[in-house]
Amino acid sequence: MSIFRFFNKQASAPKARERLQILLAHERASQGHSDLVLQLREEILAVVAKHIQIDREKVRVKMGSDDQVSTLEVDIDIPLKAGVRAA
Amino acid sequence: MSIFRFFNKQASAPKARERLQILLAHERASQGHSDLVLQLREEILAVVAKHIQIDREKVRVKMGSDDQVSTLEVDIDIPLKAGVRAA
Repeated sequence: MSIFRFFNKQASAPKARERLQILLAHERASQGHSDLVLQLREEILAVVAKHIQIDREKVRVKMGSDDQVSTLEVDIDIPLKAGVRAA
Repeated sequence: MSIFRFFNKQASAPKARERLQILLAHERASQGHSDLVLQLREEILAVVAKHIQIDREKVRVKMGSDDQVSTLEVDIDIPLKAGVRAA
């Protein structure tokens, strides 16, 4: 299954809003490692916050892990009036 | 389809390697915006490079976009000897 098809499934009917989704998966060779996904979470949110105005209430974060894979899913609603800042 | 099931499909047979996958999707309300995904690409890679030793030859980056969604897929093989740096 193509990743683009996955994302397209998420983007259903056109809506008057913007959204940023970030998905991370760390496939580990061994257990007991420091958790890379946990380390990256706040730093990536900080990078995003440099470019868009993030309302913490509009950020949904899900983390998961099993023996082999740690995952992080971040879903951010972007206020339309704020929009994307110039680079 | 759950995102966790998607990632689990990627993690097929156990392998003696580590991998980090990062997926971004920016669902835009209008066209003609500065491209958030493009802006985030190098900054997120820089954040990751602070935690793991990235060999640029082991990084695969795919970008895509249509009228509504810009996507970025980053796939990083992590050398086992390098591993994950302490936080």
